[in-house]
Amino acid sequence: MFKKEVYINRRRKLKERVSNGVALLLGNVESPMNYRDNTFHFRQDSSFLYLFGLDFPGLVGAIDFDSGEDFIFGNDVDMDDIIWMGPQVTIQENAERVGVTLTASLAKLNDFISKIIGQGRKIHILSPYRAENKILLQQLLGISVDRLAEYASVELIKAVVDLRSVKEPCEMEEMEKASATGYEMHVTAMKMAHPGTWEQKIAGTIEGIAAAGGGMISFPVILSQNGETLHNHDHSQLLKEGRLMLVDAGAESSLHYASDFTRTIPVGGKFTQKQREIYNIVLAANNRAAELIRPGVPFLSVHRAACEVMASGLKDLGLMKGDVKEAVKNGAHALFFPHGLGHMLGLDAHDMEDLGQVYVGYDEEIRPSEQFGEAALRLGRRLQPGFVVTNEPGIYFIPALIDQWRSEKTNAAFINFDKVDEYRDFGGIRLEDDMLVTESGCELIGQRVPIEPEEVEKVVSG
Amino acid sequence: MFKKEVYINRRRKLKERVSNGVALLLGNVESPMNYRDNTFHFRQDSSFLYLFGLDFPGLVGAIDFDSGEDFIFGNDVDMDDIIWMGPQVTIQENAERVGVTLTASLAKLNDFISKIIGQGRKIHILSPYRAENKILLQQLLGISVDRLAEYASVELIKAVVDLRSVKEPCEMEEMEKASATGYEMHVTAMKMAHPGTWEQKIAGTIEGIAAAGGGMISFPVILSQNGETLHNHDHSQLLKEGRLMLVDAGAESSLHYASDFTRTIPVGGKFTQKQREIYNIVLAANNRAAELIRPGVPFLSVHRAACEVMASGLKDLGLMKGDVKEAVKNGAHALFFPHGLGHMLGLDAHDMEDLGQVYVGYDEEIRPSEQFGEAALRLGRRLQPGFVVTNEPGIYFIPALIDQWRSEKTNAAFINFDKVDEYRDFGGIRLEDDMLVTESGCELIGQRVPIEPEEVEKVVSG
Repeated sequence: MFKKEVYINRRRKLKERVSNGVALLLGNVESPMNYRDNTFHFRQDSSFLYLFGLDFPGLVGAIDFDSGEDFIFGNDVDMDDIIWMGPQVTIQENAERVGVTLTASLAKLNDFISKIIGQGRKIHILSPYRAENKILLQQLLGISVDRLAEYASVELIKAVVDLRSVKEPCEMEEMEKASATGYEMHVTAMKMAHPGTWEQKIAGTIEGIAAAGGGMISFPVILSQNGETLHNHDHSQLLKEGRLMLVDAGAESSLHYASDFTRTIPVGGKFTQKQREIYNIVLAANNRAAELIRPGVPFLSVHRAACEVMASGLKDLGLMKGDVKEAVKNGAHALFFPHGLGHMLGLDAHDMEDLGQVYVGYDEEIRPSEQFGEAALRLGRRLQPGFVVTNEPGIYFIPALIDQWRSEKTNAAFINFDKVDEYRDFGGIRLEDDMLVTESGCELIGQRVPIEPEEVEKVVSG
Repeated sequence: MFKKEVYINRRRKLKERVSNGVALLLGNVESPMNYRDNTFHFRQDSSFLYLFGLDFPGLVGAIDFDSGEDFIFGNDVDMDDIIWMGPQVTIQENAERVGVTLTASLAKLNDFISKIIGQGRKIHILSPYRAENKILLQQLLGISVDRLAEYASVELIKAVVDLRSVKEPCEMEEMEKASATGYEMHVTAMKMAHPGTWEQKIAGTIEGIAAAGGGMISFPVILSQNGETLHNHDHSQLLKEGRLMLVDAGAESSLHYASDFTRTIPVGGKFTQKQREIYNIVLAANNRAAELIRPGVPFLSVHRAACEVMASGLKDLGLMKGDVKEAVKNGAHALFFPHGLGHMLGLDAHDMEDLGQVYVGYDEEIRPSEQFGEAALRLGRRLQPGFVVTNEPGIYFIPALIDQWRSEKTNAAFINFDKVDEYRDFGGIRLEDDMLVTESGCELIGQRVPIEPEEVEKVVSG
């Protein structure tokens, strides 16, 4: 974990942003695979981790905005725990490592909360995403699991988003580490991209690299020759010469900061002419976005600029037609690019997504769009120094979507459906980097994973 | 999945074992890591998988024991799902693959259940271990999450245990595959067991081998120089010359059958005299157990025989004293061996543990023990052909437990505490194989991971 001052400072800043009441911040518990004691890798809640730093299950943090006191609730181990899980330091000692002096067992939590409820004070909670924590909150607060989300404190959410959006130098060091592991994952995948190799073999191998790096994957590996399926977790195919393999994968550092890169690789090491043309359009959009990302610029406008680069390129190839700006305004490009240019990155791959995308990515000035494609943009608001965002344009040929648009004549003024049909079996290309917004622009986090088509071909061919 | 007849046959056999009512069998849903849409690898519920075969989230199976009908409830995909997750076959088509013709959307489940409740018929459920399914059952049945476990149907549990305990030939083929991946994991760990290597690097690498093999780990990798902590998931140390590295790890086949092996490896490739002496005692216990495992024999008696081999060896080394049989009867060996000799293995590493160990491992004849050590034995009942069990004796030196027994004079008649103190920093040794009970005895599943001390030394040294 970081030095205790980091956590003390974060909680101090949080207290400046929330007027009164008590925040109840639940850490995560173990998550069972196929029976209670057979659990997935433990993943702490990111906001708990951010404010309280402790990375083990069964903890609840509380912050009293009136008294300024911080609390950690958790149980110490017994002999049975020592035999099975090893000797552990006490909750008291752990709490002191993150600057918290007030601790108690979980059995005391009920009384603690009863007292606050009795005093008529506000209890701030975040919207729970783990079912175990929904049940715990139902038990603690007496609010039905079905209505808990409605009780999430917007004041607390906004304060947490405000803090977590701007990365500290110590956080950037972690993100560099996550980036280095991500780099190794992607270069390994490139080297393995030869005909006859099983997709799962590569996906599993790079997942092992994440684990061997001391963290875990920051999200389930997306690795497929059907890159047109945006979150494709089916890895059952053997690689075929002439196909593209899309790999969207990243690692967490040991303190759980994420990297998130995408590369698209020609199986066997040689792009076809058709592939190279589309690839270069996506690469141009990525490069253009990197030029535009800077403080004060709305990410929505960077997204739209990238869309225009791609629409323009697709027009040059005869796949789109008409006025490029009009086409993008009407969302015609979304046939090929139905997702957003990027999202916040930090302790989560989609940073703070559990807190509500509308608070993380939007504000009073810039509201979410309802247009197909743009509606999937997770970040629209103006950038600030210290934001970390992904830059991930893509072009996909999704047969079911093409057929739907064609039959419904959607944006028919901007799409040459006959030409598009020649690409039905193309798959998809996405190219994603992670960018830190600096005072004057932006910079890549870590070394850029090979991205120029010639570079990629060279890595695949060894 | 297996052929549809396998699932039809299993459900037919289940119907022969449950008198009336309707079994409601919940598949698992996705399990979030750090926000709702960032999920762990999907792991289907094992009993659902056993009876309905379908390996994707969001399904509920039902079996009507009165009419003999089988049902699958689940939702078909929409365009948004296709864009993000790819085209999918319908629930109807999927159900037909496992011999189920009656399907409906999840929205129909509530009416289906209301009708059964209205008819006053029994609804059989298994005890839920996933919080999401607890909440779903609360919503469907109107029974509070806190009391659901009490409503689990013992009749259904016993029927499922009865079936799943005896492995079919098609299941053994899967277990052989899981064994082959487990073999590769362990041999790789041995080859990496050199001073200066980070434990996590090895743990991550072998986890990657499991993933690359098409399944996942069958349980979180235990890999530690502190093998005396039985389920040690702390992999933060660098390997040191002269220490022992205990590795307890296994893989799932792509159909989710498990392997589960343990080996203990001298870092750098050379056992010390002290290590080799203890190692050979554990190996002798393992070999003795393998001689005794056969149909009709209570696994409890195999466990006790292995304890006697170890107590006898420890007596020869001066660590124990007195009559060996008396010592084991009094549980004195449990200072060194506080767990059981083994457990059932199948779709789960601890097979069917979610159904209740008392139903899986015990029966009317052989009841669980309350004695420290033996109480941790997960399987006591008489073995039958087709059972798959682990054989995993171990000897550990747990400082906190040694101190407690010494100060409380526990089993002081059988323990030479002064001698034991010389082993405080020893760590622990466990040696585990997976065994199929045959008509006449037992056989190893797959190739035996190197286990003779000389073999292990050779693999480490390359």
